[in-house]
Amino acid sequence: MTRFILLPGLVLSLVAPTAGAQTAVTGATALHNLMPVPATVSIEAGGLPIDSRFSVAFSGYKDARLEAAAKRMVERIARQTGIPILPKSGIAVLTVKCGKAAGRVQQVIEDESYSLKVTASGATLTAPTSYGVLRGFATFVQLIEPSPAGFVATAATIEDRPRFPWRGLMIDAGRHWQPIEVIKRNLDAMAAVKLNVFHWHLSEDQGFRVESKLYPKLQELGSDGLYYTQAQVREIVRYAADRGIRVVPEFDVPGHTGAWLVGYPHLASGPGPYEIQRRWGVFDPVLDPTNEQVYVVLERLFGEMAALFPDAFFHIGGDEVNGKQWAANKKIQAFMKRRGFKTDGDLHAYFNKRLNTILKKHHKIMVGWDEILHPDLPKDIVVQSWRGQKALADAARAGYRGILSNGYYLDYMWSTERHYLVDPVGKDAEALSDQQKARILGGEATMWSEWTTPEMIDSRTWPRTAAIAERYWSPATVRDVEDMYRRLDVVSRRLDFTGVLHRTAYRPMLERMTGGRPADALEGIVNLVEPVREYNRGRGLKQTQQSPLTRVIDAARPESEQARVFARLVDGLLADPAKKANRPAIERSLREWQDDAAAVQPLLDGFLLLEAKPIVERVSGLSALALRALQAIDQGTALKLSPEDTSLLAEAAKPMAEVHLMIVPPIRKIVDAAAGR
Amino acid sequence: MTRFILLPGLVLSLVAPTAGAQTAVTGATALHNLMPVPATVSIEAGGLPIDSRFSVAFSGYKDARLEAAAKRMVERIARQTGIPILPKSGIAVLTVKCGKAAGRVQQVIEDESYSLKVTASGATLTAPTSYGVLRGFATFVQLIEPSPAGFVATAATIEDRPRFPWRGLMIDAGRHWQPIEVIKRNLDAMAAVKLNVFHWHLSEDQGFRVESKLYPKLQELGSDGLYYTQAQVREIVRYAADRGIRVVPEFDVPGHTGAWLVGYPHLASGPGPYEIQRRWGVFDPVLDPTNEQVYVVLERLFGEMAALFPDAFFHIGGDEVNGKQWAANKKIQAFMKRRGFKTDGDLHAYFNKRLNTILKKHHKIMVGWDEILHPDLPKDIVVQSWRGQKALADAARAGYRGILSNGYYLDYMWSTERHYLVDPVGKDAEALSDQQKARILGGEATMWSEWTTPEMIDSRTWPRTAAIAERYWSPATVRDVEDMYRRLDVVSRRLDFTGVLHRTAYRPMLERMTGGRPADALEGIVNLVEPVREYNRGRGLKQTQQSPLTRVIDAARPESEQARVFARLVDGLLADPAKKANRPAIERSLREWQDDAAAVQPLLDGFLLLEAKPIVERVSGLSALALRALQAIDQGTALKLSPEDTSLLAEAAKPMAEVHLMIVPPIRKIVDAAAGR
Repeated sequence: MTRFILLPGLVLSLVAPTAGAQTAVTGATALHNLMPVPATVSIEAGGLPIDSRFSVAFSGYKDARLEAAAKRMVERIARQTGIPILPKSGIAVLTVKCGKAAGRVQQVIEDESYSLKVTASGATLTAPTSYGVLRGFATFVQLIEPSPAGFVATAATIEDRPRFPWRGLMIDAGRHWQPIEVIKRNLDAMAAVKLNVFHWHLSEDQGFRVESKLYPKLQELGSDGLYYTQAQVREIVRYAADRGIRVVPEFDVPGHTGAWLVGYPHLASGPGPYEIQRRWGVFDPVLDPTNEQVYVVLERLFGEMAALFPDAFFHIGGDEVNGKQWAANKKIQAFMKRRGFKTDGDLHAYFNKRLNTILKKHHKIMVGWDEILHPDLPKDIVVQSWRGQKALADAARAGYRGILSNGYYLDYMWSTERHYLVDPVGKDAEALSDQQKARILGGEATMWSEWTTPEMIDSRTWPRTAAIAERYWSPATVRDVEDMYRRLDVVSRRLDFTGVLHRTAYRPMLERMTGGRPADALEGIVNLVEPVREYNRGRGLKQTQQSPLTRVIDAARPESEQARVFARLVDGLLADPAKKANRPAIERSLREWQDDAAAVQPLLDGFLLLEAKPIVERVSGLSALALRALQAIDQGTALKLSPEDTSLLAEAAKPMAEVHLMIVPPIRKIVDAAAGR
Repeated sequence: MTRFILLPGLVLSLVAPTAGAQTAVTGATALHNLMPVPATVSIEAGGLPIDSRFSVAFSGYKDARLEAAAKRMVERIARQTGIPILPKSGIAVLTVKCGKAAGRVQQVIEDESYSLKVTASGATLTAPTSYGVLRGFATFVQLIEPSPAGFVATAATIEDRPRFPWRGLMIDAGRHWQPIEVIKRNLDAMAAVKLNVFHWHLSEDQGFRVESKLYPKLQELGSDGLYYTQAQVREIVRYAADRGIRVVPEFDVPGHTGAWLVGYPHLASGPGPYEIQRRWGVFDPVLDPTNEQVYVVLERLFGEMAALFPDAFFHIGGDEVNGKQWAANKKIQAFMKRRGFKTDGDLHAYFNKRLNTILKKHHKIMVGWDEILHPDLPKDIVVQSWRGQKALADAARAGYRGILSNGYYLDYMWSTERHYLVDPVGKDAEALSDQQKARILGGEATMWSEWTTPEMIDSRTWPRTAAIAERYWSPATVRDVEDMYRRLDVVSRRLDFTGVLHRTAYRPMLERMTGGRPADALEGIVNLVEPVREYNRGRGLKQTQQSPLTRVIDAARPESEQARVFARLVDGLLADPAKKANRPAIERSLREWQDDAAAVQPLLDGFLLLEAKPIVERVSGLSALALRALQAIDQGTALKLSPEDTSLLAEAAKPMAEVHLMIVPPIRKIVDAAAGR
């Protein structure tokens, strides 16, 4: 495989600065590996040694939840450092002063602030509420670094509080089933980067994923047996609450209800029968807003679910109703005419108003996607914007509270940088008044699961979500992309110790492709590609929920670290008049890719690798071309490009096997420079 | 990191042979990746396609356990192939004909035989009992390979049965605590290679690991809070039974009882007080065989434990009594004199006889280590031999049943080959009569945990235990080491899908050493070392149970695949008169090691890597020396060795940081050949 290239700049700042060096920074980057960056942080000399006697003491308020959180933090430190820390055997080195208990149910706005002071002789974490303690624990773990004498918590003074109160991750368990292990380990990773809302997308055309005792055919006929029992839901809600994370359930209505209608076809706007949908897209089946029976079912079902999910918010989806069943149903058309509804939107708003009344009865605040926004809806609903920042700004201007998800679609396979620079109150929202801005509660990264199974969901979610979490927590001024990547590199490796498999699941997926043979060279190649973006996957392919997701595109990470680092090396080379900078590292990479391409050849007959053939050929060809280009630069001669060279560059720039070969742009730069273009 | 070198010979036989090729083999190697090799196997052309409709049907006896086993197998296939197999959605492609139910409790001798016939149109598994079905399922999973058209179960006709009825793995949860996740995932891996005895070493000087309700101070004062609750024990026993694995508990008495005595010092042969032992070795504390109170406690405690563990066998340890407390205790000396006991062995035998009476009352058969063997003991006890094959042969000759563990000590850090070639009825046992040989029930790999935490226990246990399992199951004639390694290479990667972390835990351990920085180059170096063997670790170091096991030696695998393959490449080169064979691959490895050594340099200041400095320097120096040697061979000149070269070779052959650099012997061969020695 291709060795990750160590840039001198990347090596910096992993150990506490030497004595005397003191950097006070406010909401900006400093020599630490904290993510999200705290509101204010001052990194100081030295650190607090961490050894097997480490323990936590509470000097203020404490309760079972806080003690459990302290125990989890100690276990996490033990895993991360490998130091066996025995329960109860320690001396207190971290003192926690908590002001008061958290309420029974976590509210959308809680005081999550904390102060953390770490010196060579001890650490003190002070917070007005339990939530601040939880956030401070997450920071304390991130301060632990190897020092020459062993692990230490870097000495620091931190005052911290979140920028936005709603910092979420949505996981779609409808399209591809995600068992509770997946949810649990992702909750642990969320807590590590201070996210506080788990939005659980629980029903889809492709599956209804929660046990209903009142309407059991929902899960019995609508889930292939793949659903959460009510006991499991309670377990997850408790697990999340322990970590200071709210659980907002989503039952998407009236569209995306194909799986509901298998068991209860009489609720549909069109004639059945219905089957669980196996394909991806927007489908016709939709609940009938003119059928009183629909409201009876929703009132009872939402009542059942409202009791399972203590959070004050309840997400009713509301997106992507294509209106076909409504248009084709004379009874519905007559109803609309009778009521004077001009558009499907009016009918949808009527439905949502009825729903809102139902939710109010169950003491829930309605949340829905952009489409629920309609002047008829009261101002206390919350809009989650997937369509764009303008929609969110308009909603805030109109008096609604909102959450931004546009720009945070993890399934779009964007780079971390691209997600990172999206600001919940950026773009159209910048012009809002402060009062209007305050209506934007925060954001949510969304992990839609058309192309995501339990095996690789973590690699789609992490580490990118850590950078998004920083956007939601840290001051708006924290936008240094290079420093973000520097810290993310470390944070990503340490997320291993929370239990997420974003790094470890890669190798077994590659070894499946090789039929159990060594996959090092294959890894070297797959390291260089990224999946096609947005909705460019699966076009023209007959893929369904049952299609194995075991291809190169499924193993490939959303962002190629190797290509990103290589591109920076090339920029360095070309910016250098003598063209010597980074030259050895660039040449070594190119030679390794050639070797990898050669070594992977005998494996390409495996059915899972057949489609990788052109990728491998182009890696080989491009590496050779770039080496020639380097030689030409060395010799000061102009590189002559053959028609084959030109065609190779053009072909390699197109997606192959639905992945992009990410070394093409930097190699093109070398070639252009060498050819004097 | 150093790329694993693909030898042409290793690439063979991963897909089913082409049409017409039919190999009938009896207990020997064939073109398959089965481990253990079945008693008879015929690999045939083609295979049975595996897709999302795969399912299992029972045409004979069935029960909940068999159905659960079928479900687990389907899940395992889904994980291994990445094919989403929906519950109940399939058509039967594997038909199971089971003769009859298994008894309530698995006996030491059960009929585990089965026949498996796989053709392009379907598969049939026939077995007289449930145990054969479980074993056949394990084989069926191993037959699944990628073919040009997708995954298939290779067509085959298999008649299979085990050579030995007792095929065990012992895990020591006493010295280092091993939580139930560790036990569960290891039970899954055991089932995958047809092991059927989990020997659970539950008490030690360093910890008493089971909850006793009768004597709660055992766990309360003797375990640091790290013990299995009785509910967890029942859960593990059930989990194992579901997989056709017996659970034999071990409570080691009268020695190794330091942790018991913290809570119950009056049972000791010497004066207390006692503390949990934190160091490793053989210690003085021992129960007092002359104290009637000891038998009262053991009768009640073993009664409590006998009810928890349904297996007919109960292991009482009995090893390593150093006799110091007995010698120093006048009351005990008087007792021995009174009874006419001449040696500690006589007193120990007296103790064991009393113990045997107690166990009989609880309907248990006594098992113990070598030391329990004494003419006074009845013939129905079972001896587990750790001292040697002679001890086992003597026991069998004397009429005792026995199990071999000598030669299967996983903590010795031997190569797979070395373990693999040890035969339970080999060496001294070869001369036994058939009747005597039959008393040797089988063997047990033993995973002692002085140097083993939950983080790396899997890498010490797997894949080596898969080869040992083959020794216990397959015909004695299956001894082809090269073929074993060929299959092990594949089997090891596929064990990932059982849940063991023997491969995936490596990288995070290396990244802990680098402080979260890229560890590829470090991996390249650590791939070349092996821990020191047998009891050579920790000498002169003040290491305890609380010492972090986070060093290079802890991450290093017991066997370096890379060094083993490199050594074979070198042998090929030197056996080749023209010295061209394998030359490019050898040179590539050497250059990569040089690169790795250079790239790892900036990391060596990390406190966990300081001790790796000489290793890295020697890898660099040896690679350079070997490259010079290759050049001399090319040019037909004699390599001239400087005093520095000679010293380098000598120094590199010694352990550094308690690891062996495994490329030294093959590099020495190249150098010797080049120098004309």
